[in-house]
Amino acid sequence: MGERESLNIMGLSHALLAIERGECTALDIIEACFDRIEAREAQVGAWQYRLDREAYLQHYHRYREFYESSRLKGLPVGIKDIIDTYDMPTEMGSAIHKGRQPVDDASCVALLRDAGAIPLGKTVTTEFAYFKPGKTANPRDLKRTPGGSSSGSAAAVADGMVSIALGSQTAASVIRPAAYCGVVGYVGSRGEYSLRGVQPLAQSLDSLGVFGRKVEDVQLMRWLLSRHQQPLRAGEPRKPNRIAICAGEHLGDTDPEMQFAIKNMEAVLQRHGVATIQLQDDGLLLKMVEHHQRIMAYEVARNLAYESLHRETLSEPLNALIDMGLAMGYASYLESLQAAEVTRGWLWSRYDDVDAVLAPAAPGVAPLGLEKTGAPHMSRPWQAMGLPVITLPVITLPGIADRESLPLGIQLIGRARQDDALFSVARWMESMIAKMGF
Amino acid sequence: MGERESLNIMGLSHALLAIERGECTALDIIEACFDRIEAREAQVGAWQYRLDREAYLQHYHRYREFYESSRLKGLPVGIKDIIDTYDMPTEMGSAIHKGRQPVDDASCVALLRDAGAIPLGKTVTTEFAYFKPGKTANPRDLKRTPGGSSSGSAAAVADGMVSIALGSQTAASVIRPAAYCGVVGYVGSRGEYSLRGVQPLAQSLDSLGVFGRKVEDVQLMRWLLSRHQQPLRAGEPRKPNRIAICAGEHLGDTDPEMQFAIKNMEAVLQRHGVATIQLQDDGLLLKMVEHHQRIMAYEVARNLAYESLHRETLSEPLNALIDMGLAMGYASYLESLQAAEVTRGWLWSRYDDVDAVLAPAAPGVAPLGLEKTGAPHMSRPWQAMGLPVITLPVITLPGIADRESLPLGIQLIGRARQDDALFSVARWMESMIAKMGF
Repeated sequence: MGERESLNIMGLSHALLAIERGECTALDIIEACFDRIEAREAQVGAWQYRLDREAYLQHYHRYREFYESSRLKGLPVGIKDIIDTYDMPTEMGSAIHKGRQPVDDASCVALLRDAGAIPLGKTVTTEFAYFKPGKTANPRDLKRTPGGSSSGSAAAVADGMVSIALGSQTAASVIRPAAYCGVVGYVGSRGEYSLRGVQPLAQSLDSLGVFGRKVEDVQLMRWLLSRHQQPLRAGEPRKPNRIAICAGEHLGDTDPEMQFAIKNMEAVLQRHGVATIQLQDDGLLLKMVEHHQRIMAYEVARNLAYESLHRETLSEPLNALIDMGLAMGYASYLESLQAAEVTRGWLWSRYDDVDAVLAPAAPGVAPLGLEKTGAPHMSRPWQAMGLPVITLPVITLPGIADRESLPLGIQLIGRARQDDALFSVARWMESMIAKMGF
Repeated sequence: MGERESLNIMGLSHALLAIERGECTALDIIEACFDRIEAREAQVGAWQYRLDREAYLQHYHRYREFYESSRLKGLPVGIKDIIDTYDMPTEMGSAIHKGRQPVDDASCVALLRDAGAIPLGKTVTTEFAYFKPGKTANPRDLKRTPGGSSSGSAAAVADGMVSIALGSQTAASVIRPAAYCGVVGYVGSRGEYSLRGVQPLAQSLDSLGVFGRKVEDVQLMRWLLSRHQQPLRAGEPRKPNRIAICAGEHLGDTDPEMQFAIKNMEAVLQRHGVATIQLQDDGLLLKMVEHHQRIMAYEVARNLAYESLHRETLSEPLNALIDMGLAMGYASYLESLQAAEVTRGWLWSRYDDVDAVLAPAAPGVAPLGLEKTGAPHMSRPWQAMGLPVITLPVITLPGIADRESLPLGIQLIGRARQDDALFSVARWMESMIAKMGF
């Protein structure tokens, strides 16, 4: 048991290497993950539904030959509970869909199964991936929110229950929980992955997301999910030439700690010879926060057509969003879509020599209390523009209540459909942060 | 029975008016539709699954109060069998999904039910809305293809089994079968409607579609599907100022009859004082045919992740498409996406005073034989650009074999997200065509 203790917190790539080298077996890691779940799930509450150890092992042994020869070796993965799975319910965090059992796997799930991952269970989501939280607590401080909407996926990875989990983002649903829980979060460019079987919230905004412990782990997922025949060699760490800094104070509240962290990161970049420039947006990004909300409201009201006929079962914030969407005129919706396109063009033509934008992934550390999942304004502008984004945990602050450490996360924002270039920069940044020794 | 005979071929709006005026009841129309189905379904084969008369009437009577006070009065609608329905199987034209019973309604189905439509059944689709045909024959000449992939929806409306049916288009799957069967077909701008529960084929290309007998019927569907609170007043018939003509010979084969029909339409436009201009595209649209194929191949290979692990159950053309998609490089996929964006911008800036483009909806009349669904090249360029399109039946030629009339269809192509403006032009064109008295 002693040796097994740390196996659950190895990153995925590290684990696969250890298995290949014979330093441990996939079964050792699986058992370590279940040890952790059994020890912690009662407090963390990351899972909406999950296999128990016996069922998992039974399945593993039944197909052992396949798993042993597979890329992912039968290691467990968490699946956000708005992503359909043929063998587990998908309830979308809503009482309306209690016990809802889809007939198919989402394509992303089918691809991971084919690569030899085993879905250990469905991770808690807020109600329809919007605001109303589920039962999950932040594993770094159980009195704090894990963030949302991909709450359970972020918490499960942060707590070492699985090394990889799938999520989705329409506003800030991957980037913020990754920051609050202190893990790597990745949101793909809009349109990049098949969303078949991922229950949509707003088609102009929804993106697939992945949580992991290290950037290279998430990068491996990107490769499998994009179903390319050849590994993506372009994804090696690369020192950027120039980074644009968006400190984000003008988008909404930012905590002093976060401002300090951003300044600190900027200093680190400069020390390594990376040019930095303050992003001057003439108020466009703040407007984008509002446009994002409008696009979301309009589309949610159409996507949740069935559910919005059962208003009494929906939360107050979701009902308010649907009402806002139903009251909106079509011209106003188009105006917001158009603004997102125009702003995206403006951003990358004005900063055409910039490798990525660096910004706070959230206003600060995870807020106290489980009744709200934190503010999404730091993600709305980039999500409206459909850009790829990666959260990196950069610094940890002493926890106020129980002296555990609280993570702060930054986000790196890339060009649309240039996810690989963003990964290269993120891997370099990750190694710099590691050297900083926070 | 005599009086009932024509009730099934009234357009939806006409039917609703007749019910309102007490000239007939919804039940009269429903019975007439079932009379037609029972007389013709054995030859036409429009339905993959359907309610029988008794089940339909039982349901209608059980909720009679709701239907009588509803907008659509309990009238029947056909649903393409790639669109999920909670109470009927959705098999996607594939043996892999034989008996597949979804747990939810697609949002478009939920909206139509809420408006008082009753899904009479699931209409035949080609395999996963790609090439391999189902059992459907063209009701205008049973030895000819109805076109695909929304074969059953087009045939059911054309044959008077229902007045309205839902379809979808990734290449030419609405526009072409509407033309071959002689009904109105509409493809919404990309992103315009919720596609939740519509099984995706290629996310950058998929659009929701509607078949009906008259443009105003389809326009009513648009209003219900877009869930706007107020009826769309902008949709009244409007004479266009200028129409660009794309005769389409450079995109691929075009039959002499179709060339004649386009010239004829052009003359009619000019006679009514509408300026026409020949679309000069410098070969861009032909390139777009190829880019469309590439985008489709790349994305289908990802969306059909699960199914493509069971290659032996897929048709040869679908396997070839998946192989093409898997072999494609990412850069090449991006290049095609980019080309579609650039060409869309080029088209509407070069022809900025044009109300719509007029083009053949298909190379000619429906080809003989049921083993293929006809060529999609007339639709690929517009679909790659995500534009709204309406098929209008313009002329009928004497059938070669059985002396029935064979329809020719033209398409009107509008600006992205300006579907209402396109409907106005289409209604005006429809009235001109009616006056032509073909």
